[in-house]
Amino acid sequence: MDIKALRTAHPEHWNKAAAIRTLTLDAVAAANSGHSGMPMGMADVATVLFEKHLKFDPKAPAWPDRDRFILSAGHGSMLLYSLMYLTGYEDITLDQIKDFRQWGAKTAGHPEFGHARGIETTTGPLGQGIANSVGFAIAEEIQRATWGKKIIDHHTYVIAGDGCLMEGVSQEAIGLAGMQKLGHLCVLWDNNNITIDGTVDMADITDQPARFAASGWHVQSIDGHDPEAIDAAITAAKADPRPSMIACKTHIALGHAAQDTPKGHGALTNADQLKATKELYGAPLGDFEVAADVKAQWEAIGARGAETRAAWEERFATLSGTKQAEFNRAYAGEAPKKLSATIRALKKQVSEDQPKVATRKSSELTLQAVNPIMNETIGGSADLTGSNNTLTADMGIFNPENRKGRYIYYGVREHGMAAAMNGMALHGGARPYGGTFMCFTDYARGAMRLSALMGIPTTYVMTHDSIGLGEDGPTHQPVEHLAMMRATPNTHVFRPADTVETAESWEMALTSTSTPSVLCLSRQNLPTVRTEHKTKNLTAQGAYVLAEATGKRQAILMATGSEVEVALAARELLEAEGIGTRVVSMPCWELFEAQDESYRKRVLPAGPVRVAIEAGVRLGWDKWLMGERGNNKKAGFVGMPGFGASAPAERLFEEFGITAKDTADLVKSLIK
Amino acid sequence: MDIKALRTAHPEHWNKAAAIRTLTLDAVAAANSGHSGMPMGMADVATVLFEKHLKFDPKAPAWPDRDRFILSAGHGSMLLYSLMYLTGYEDITLDQIKDFRQWGAKTAGHPEFGHARGIETTTGPLGQGIANSVGFAIAEEIQRATWGKKIIDHHTYVIAGDGCLMEGVSQEAIGLAGMQKLGHLCVLWDNNNITIDGTVDMADITDQPARFAASGWHVQSIDGHDPEAIDAAITAAKADPRPSMIACKTHIALGHAAQDTPKGHGALTNADQLKATKELYGAPLGDFEVAADVKAQWEAIGARGAETRAAWEERFATLSGTKQAEFNRAYAGEAPKKLSATIRALKKQVSEDQPKVATRKSSELTLQAVNPIMNETIGGSADLTGSNNTLTADMGIFNPENRKGRYIYYGVREHGMAAAMNGMALHGGARPYGGTFMCFTDYARGAMRLSALMGIPTTYVMTHDSIGLGEDGPTHQPVEHLAMMRATPNTHVFRPADTVETAESWEMALTSTSTPSVLCLSRQNLPTVRTEHKTKNLTAQGAYVLAEATGKRQAILMATGSEVEVALAARELLEAEGIGTRVVSMPCWELFEAQDESYRKRVLPAGPVRVAIEAGVRLGWDKWLMGERGNNKKAGFVGMPGFGASAPAERLFEEFGITAKDTADLVKSLIK
Repeated sequence: MDIKALRTAHPEHWNKAAAIRTLTLDAVAAANSGHSGMPMGMADVATVLFEKHLKFDPKAPAWPDRDRFILSAGHGSMLLYSLMYLTGYEDITLDQIKDFRQWGAKTAGHPEFGHARGIETTTGPLGQGIANSVGFAIAEEIQRATWGKKIIDHHTYVIAGDGCLMEGVSQEAIGLAGMQKLGHLCVLWDNNNITIDGTVDMADITDQPARFAASGWHVQSIDGHDPEAIDAAITAAKADPRPSMIACKTHIALGHAAQDTPKGHGALTNADQLKATKELYGAPLGDFEVAADVKAQWEAIGARGAETRAAWEERFATLSGTKQAEFNRAYAGEAPKKLSATIRALKKQVSEDQPKVATRKSSELTLQAVNPIMNETIGGSADLTGSNNTLTADMGIFNPENRKGRYIYYGVREHGMAAAMNGMALHGGARPYGGTFMCFTDYARGAMRLSALMGIPTTYVMTHDSIGLGEDGPTHQPVEHLAMMRATPNTHVFRPADTVETAESWEMALTSTSTPSVLCLSRQNLPTVRTEHKTKNLTAQGAYVLAEATGKRQAILMATGSEVEVALAARELLEAEGIGTRVVSMPCWELFEAQDESYRKRVLPAGPVRVAIEAGVRLGWDKWLMGERGNNKKAGFVGMPGFGASAPAERLFEEFGITAKDTADLVKSLIK
Repeated sequence: MDIKALRTAHPEHWNKAAAIRTLTLDAVAAANSGHSGMPMGMADVATVLFEKHLKFDPKAPAWPDRDRFILSAGHGSMLLYSLMYLTGYEDITLDQIKDFRQWGAKTAGHPEFGHARGIETTTGPLGQGIANSVGFAIAEEIQRATWGKKIIDHHTYVIAGDGCLMEGVSQEAIGLAGMQKLGHLCVLWDNNNITIDGTVDMADITDQPARFAASGWHVQSIDGHDPEAIDAAITAAKADPRPSMIACKTHIALGHAAQDTPKGHGALTNADQLKATKELYGAPLGDFEVAADVKAQWEAIGARGAETRAAWEERFATLSGTKQAEFNRAYAGEAPKKLSATIRALKKQVSEDQPKVATRKSSELTLQAVNPIMNETIGGSADLTGSNNTLTADMGIFNPENRKGRYIYYGVREHGMAAAMNGMALHGGARPYGGTFMCFTDYARGAMRLSALMGIPTTYVMTHDSIGLGEDGPTHQPVEHLAMMRATPNTHVFRPADTVETAESWEMALTSTSTPSVLCLSRQNLPTVRTEHKTKNLTAQGAYVLAEATGKRQAILMATGSEVEVALAARELLEAEGIGTRVVSMPCWELFEAQDESYRKRVLPAGPVRVAIEAGVRLGWDKWLMGERGNNKKAGFVGMPGFGASAPAERLFEEFGITAKDTADLVKSLIK
């Protein structure tokens, strides 16, 4: 690459872009780890985007109508940190840049949402950012339709690398965005033909523009080091009603000895090469040095949006007080005040009617009450709407003809759905939930983990939560998935036993601001076990005494979801034999763990035999069986020894021994 | 659709295809569940494929050189079962068809590998079959190059639906197959424009032929009910050197009242409609009835391959005895006899040299010894070859120019890699292993679960197995993944402490025939802890006493992987204070669980304080801490309280308190 020619052609531009490059080189060298090449390759594209197009104000990183910039190729985090430092984001100081990848720094190895205001999403696991961006763009479309262009009218820009585009989740994102004609979405592909193992063509020969075009995208191919071409392409992208992909031909590690090589992808720390690169750039040679005029130009770029934001604030102020409050409430992630009363009313009705329904149906009943009072919910399903019971009549279907619709047909795309929901939650003003069969958390895991890591309240509606699914067989029957989700930090795993607990679980999910929720729901009908109305949300305690022992308490049965019914029936058998038995319903372990010792002790006192019943694997249950004042000689488990099987559900519960009789027999054997 | 016209145009073909359709209708009606529409839509394609093209012999379902038929749209299982019954596979009798989806039947809701000989892979989770097929086709290419066309020369055919193509993993498969020019792979796309939620265009407008073509595939579009067009297209596909995709325009639930509707996707059980459909078909009306002449024609199709197979047997017999034995050994999944001695020699050398290396490097050392003596290994990495240490010099790179290469650059495609490896293992004669960062088991989960469910010995090389990864931060640091994998039935999770345990773990993985293995390996260097050579494979016992207490045994420290070093250092501290401390290394819980009680009791006797040390979450450890003769008042855990952070690894271990001192302090607090 002829660096001199680049410098000469656009000297001002060059120096601005070079500042990104040298900050990256210095930060990676100081950390002695990281990824130099990607920011060096995409600095020109990012400079033009920030200078000419991106609507942003570093002084107001949470401004709702800002454009969103998503660094899907998150290993190039120094690109983002450099831009934030140069344009004047308060959280990213030069000291933070110098502290790149160190304990306590906001400048983590990969961009972490929540570390610094202005980081829109956590990226690093490849493909997540581009898949998030579809959710950002959907949220923008819905809010633009709902609030009008004066309040919401912004774009979502993504920088994605070859790795992002090889990950399958990118196809789910591309397919969904293309069908939905998300015209405010623009993907800038860092087309550098380099991955860690070598040139891309060692693993992929895909014609990416043709691939995007096949799904309905507007595509362009440009020289990613030509600022005029970059500007023209972004301008064209904005003008096109389709989502846009701009293939930016770039040189990874531009101007460095490692340019265009896999080595250039990683940490370039050689001091001599670093110096030579800076010299070639015509950049200042000092560590972390940016020429004052260049910094001033960048700050001017950062100041560019203040006026636009002020104008927005003025427009926002013209909304009625009620509308402003509603907007701000949704953006704060607060549930409406009447949610609590709505849930209570539903619970009361259900405790009286005592329906025998599947908890997926209970979930639908809850959503029918909730969706009309929470306009920020965005529902959907990965092609299992009728099975997940996720659609309510009021929502309307979101598609190019109905931008006010709040229900997404995601298609058979669990991972893309989960990542898009994360994007909606991150966008703000939206509370997404989406459904699939619980077994297919396997497909969505990559994004579910990021909900937890980012601390955002995405809600997963996972139905068909056990062998209760029946004939579809073991490929569709979760057994390890409860344990998997419980093992994941900062995740609330709800497995409600009936409609009352389902409504309570939804209340917890809808009021959460920093923890994702998973609702694990039955395919099969379950009786109402909460037959006495309590105003209090008992599920909020995680576990509680559902049925007390008559006389001397010899056994405690713990169960979740569909097995609470089994526990209650086992209690009947045991009580009939004079064995006093308490039943503890445990819809959410994590919330029970968060209770104080005295409450936990009241629910799980020392002494009695403890048996847990859950149609999943035992892993994790020993904490409650033997810990928490338990005793390993008086502990037992009724559940799945391994994978399930294909047969009618009742037969499966019989064959796998998850019945009241098996439970009672186990209790008796432990009492002896 | 004009059924009469179809009947008239090709009456013999029609009746054969109608037999698939009526068996499907009857079996689904009898089960009162299942998926009628897909087999009814694709019956014509399947009939032509089996009649004119597929090389198979129902009497020899394990014949190594048979064509493979993969039903990626696994919900259409009755298509496969009908074909197997009609052509005379011993395991699929009419009684099995009648017992569809019932307890103990071989005819599970979705095709389950191992239930009936002739089912090539377990499908149902969408996209897996098409991704498996890439592995089948790679294995075939390698073996054709290695053994010659006289021994191996067959095709892999896949039926995939709209759902398969919407799943992201399909893109990973398409990309890899296109680059690798897998000319013996042919995907028949059931292009019926129907999914569960409605027409496909409600969620996707992708031009699928254009998408496949963008990745280098040969594409054709045909009427999927025209037997001549089907035949011609498959013929053309076989002649083309690229992988082929044939878009077969079909009508779901052809001829039924529910044709072309989402209802047609599911269980069509209405008796009147069923009768009307059979009448329209001109098919016999009896339940499960197939006209004798039609059955005879199908049996003739089944008999077609016998001669070809006999000729193959003859050719195989011309190989030398040594070659035949080698071929048969690989197909039996048996390790060579000298594997054991090779591993022992490596262990002995390492116990003497006592290198301090990362276990990912230990894994490379083992592979360097193993790969030259096991020609059936096929290695690879999802674009992290240098980090996963998965490539050895002898393997050669597999690509279109080098079909004897045994190492695959999978690209950034963890899920596609895992599914392709499953395909290789299922193909036979191949033992695949592949690497990525352990955190990205999240991406590969869908296929990893199927390795376990199918009981095939795919080996996962998961490096960077904790916060020991360091600066890349929490997106790349597994904390819950050990628990996730341990929760999964039939999965051996190895976390070796040094090179000796790594070699032992590999020996277990390479001799497994029915269980996948996951090797969890460190990024960071670890000392050799097995400094005294033992011939016996101690890892085979799952856990063992690594260091005994001096004097009275007051504490037992349990640890895995990189934390065994911490346990040994804590033991030093405790012993120095007169606290006798045993260290138990636990490289594989599942193998320890399989030991008899007396052995487990010797390793974990009652009495001493027990502390476990592992740089992951606690979930699951309570079994060993409090169960197995433990005591909840004398149990403690040193590990991760939640997600990790971005910083140098040493700092992270300090900050999260995973140190010898923290461990010793905890032990002392529990002894008091």
